[in-house]
Amino acid sequence: MKRGSKVLDSLPHRSLQSQWYSPRYLPRGLQTSTSFTPKTIFSGIQPTGVPHLGNYLGALKQWTSFQNTETESTKLIFCIVDLHAITSPQKASNLRQWKKEMLTTLLAIGLNPDRCIIFEQSRVPAHSELMWILSCISSTGRLSRMTQWKSKLGISEEHHSLEDKSTETLKLGLFSYPVLQAADILVHRATHVPVGEDQAQHLELTRDIVGAFHHNYGKVFPLPATLLSPAKRVMSLSDPTQKMSKSAPDPKSRILLTDSPTSVQGKIKVALTDSLETYGITYDPQKRPGLSNLIEIYAHIQGREDFEHVASEFEGLTKKVFKERVADCINESLESIRSEYTRITETEGDGFLEKVVREGSAKAANSAEETMVKVREALGLL
Amino acid sequence: MKRGSKVLDSLPHRSLQSQWYSPRYLPRGLQTSTSFTPKTIFSGIQPTGVPHLGNYLGALKQWTSFQNTETESTKLIFCIVDLHAITSPQKASNLRQWKKEMLTTLLAIGLNPDRCIIFEQSRVPAHSELMWILSCISSTGRLSRMTQWKSKLGISEEHHSLEDKSTETLKLGLFSYPVLQAADILVHRATHVPVGEDQAQHLELTRDIVGAFHHNYGKVFPLPATLLSPAKRVMSLSDPTQKMSKSAPDPKSRILLTDSPTSVQGKIKVALTDSLETYGITYDPQKRPGLSNLIEIYAHIQGREDFEHVASEFEGLTKKVFKERVADCINESLESIRSEYTRITETEGDGFLEKVVREGSAKAANSAEETMVKVREALGLL
Repeated sequence: MKRGSKVLDSLPHRSLQSQWYSPRYLPRGLQTSTSFTPKTIFSGIQPTGVPHLGNYLGALKQWTSFQNTETESTKLIFCIVDLHAITSPQKASNLRQWKKEMLTTLLAIGLNPDRCIIFEQSRVPAHSELMWILSCISSTGRLSRMTQWKSKLGISEEHHSLEDKSTETLKLGLFSYPVLQAADILVHRATHVPVGEDQAQHLELTRDIVGAFHHNYGKVFPLPATLLSPAKRVMSLSDPTQKMSKSAPDPKSRILLTDSPTSVQGKIKVALTDSLETYGITYDPQKRPGLSNLIEIYAHIQGREDFEHVASEFEGLTKKVFKERVADCINESLESIRSEYTRITETEGDGFLEKVVREGSAKAANSAEETMVKVREALGLL
Repeated sequence: MKRGSKVLDSLPHRSLQSQWYSPRYLPRGLQTSTSFTPKTIFSGIQPTGVPHLGNYLGALKQWTSFQNTETESTKLIFCIVDLHAITSPQKASNLRQWKKEMLTTLLAIGLNPDRCIIFEQSRVPAHSELMWILSCISSTGRLSRMTQWKSKLGISEEHHSLEDKSTETLKLGLFSYPVLQAADILVHRATHVPVGEDQAQHLELTRDIVGAFHHNYGKVFPLPATLLSPAKRVMSLSDPTQKMSKSAPDPKSRILLTDSPTSVQGKIKVALTDSLETYGITYDPQKRPGLSNLIEIYAHIQGREDFEHVASEFEGLTKKVFKERVADCINESLESIRSEYTRITETEGDGFLEKVVREGSAKAANSAEETMVKVREALGLL
């Protein structure tokens, strides 16, 4: 009887328990099968310092909820992607500080380092190693059609050439960014990846890279599935046509998770809405983007998506009172994060943070090395 | 008195010996100074299996001569660049075999693993790590003007766009190749790099990357100097307008270092020359490329470059006799390599090779880690 993968797939369950079919005795080809990959959720965030409300509602809040909703067998892996951060020029002292603030925040929002792997990308060289390997099967044509590097350079999406004035400043790192992202996901053999809608294109590329890898070298990776965030993009408080962002010049355009209650009240009070007072509080993202953004923030904090209904609950209130309610709601949800952030900073200190990230990175390195052994074997590097 | 680097540079020698100025006590900025970098020669070779005479005379022979001519304080680091090899599609079993053959050859030509660091690139993740970091300061415009990826794709050097038919197959790895090469050199803080003339463009890029890195993050790397190989390119025996190459379809176009004496005689006997019999044996690369190639091979083996004079020593001989002399000369120089290759393969075996490469890679990883600590610190990653 031949022991190809088809035969294995059709074996009755009890045969899988026999010694012969235990992983150790599987024929070589089958050892790189991914049929035994546990559910693994991977996500990354750039070290931009203390995150803003958009980061929290768009991604981080979901990370903490995985801890409560996923069974224990699901691996949760969260990465501070400092190697992605350096695709834009960074001052060393800023990067160092921002990484620390991001890590503190991840702990402050309730991520438990005993339940999740929390680590820094640059401490796990396998991310860069796999990035190089994947770059050898990634098409430059495909990358030149990606939109992110163009939006960062502020040029048209129709632009493809790398050899003219407008792309003069394009660095290879920014151009290759989506391939490192693919490596981040694949090196941990993630099965599920929560992404914002602006990153869906990159996950599609990752899936194509998996296809190319399997075609060339055999099956090693699971095909990662997209988990879309329940929260849509949170918009800027001062320009609701733009995403809330750390890099916007106006600090009043965003709420940081460590902002004081007074600061939150002040920022919401001056948040740009509209002068259609006669309509009261209504949800209409097209005509009333500022007001609708506040309604969405209020709803997302409570885990709701019935924005029209939320708006109706404010019927008859003035905008001033509505804004006070929104600020109260934000402050209430940030209270424990703020106090935990302060506790960690003031009581635990740098030694504790270093220990957390070192231990997390060691676990991540183990997770990645398991994959890299299979990858090196598949390529003939080992 | 301020202790800036200028002050340090102008200090009398004895001050450098005082405790205050020992590396441990240097102000932080100066700790990343490269003034104490020892002379370090780095070179790499692709694992293409047993090398041919062109590889040997163009590069490997020079590697062995460094062992004899350089003082003990000079670090010699030689790398089998398997991560470069995968920029072209490779069959895993071939790559595995070719890496083993290359390593065996490096030992057979006389490289001493106690004197040199001999290792495989894929076993030292710092090469990929630094590659990513350097890619964040490397211009895509500059890379699109490099010639190697174009010659590999067989397209014009004037071609720059990555988004049309002719570059459809261009992978990111091949496009980024010179940046990995820069990382190979810089991760070991090499001061001297022997390169063939076709690689001079890549070393120039490396020097520019050093400049950009120092501009952004401070001085970490020495500026590597080029050591041009004494041997020009050895040409194909069957088409002397082309470089001798492993990938040429005709096996008679090249001599492998393990070819038997009979095989060498046969290949030289049918090597393409010309029918200008009346001129006898003369050196004229333009008009008589085949004959001149054989004269150069003969000369280089003896460490000579006086090609006209070498030709004159064959005055009056027929081409047949001349070719026999060339074959004898090649066979004589390959004799010890061949027998050592056989001895290693038959007596020492795979366990020995694995031990050599594992120990070499551990030394290389140490050498690289010293640099990476400085790099991570400079960027704020640590």
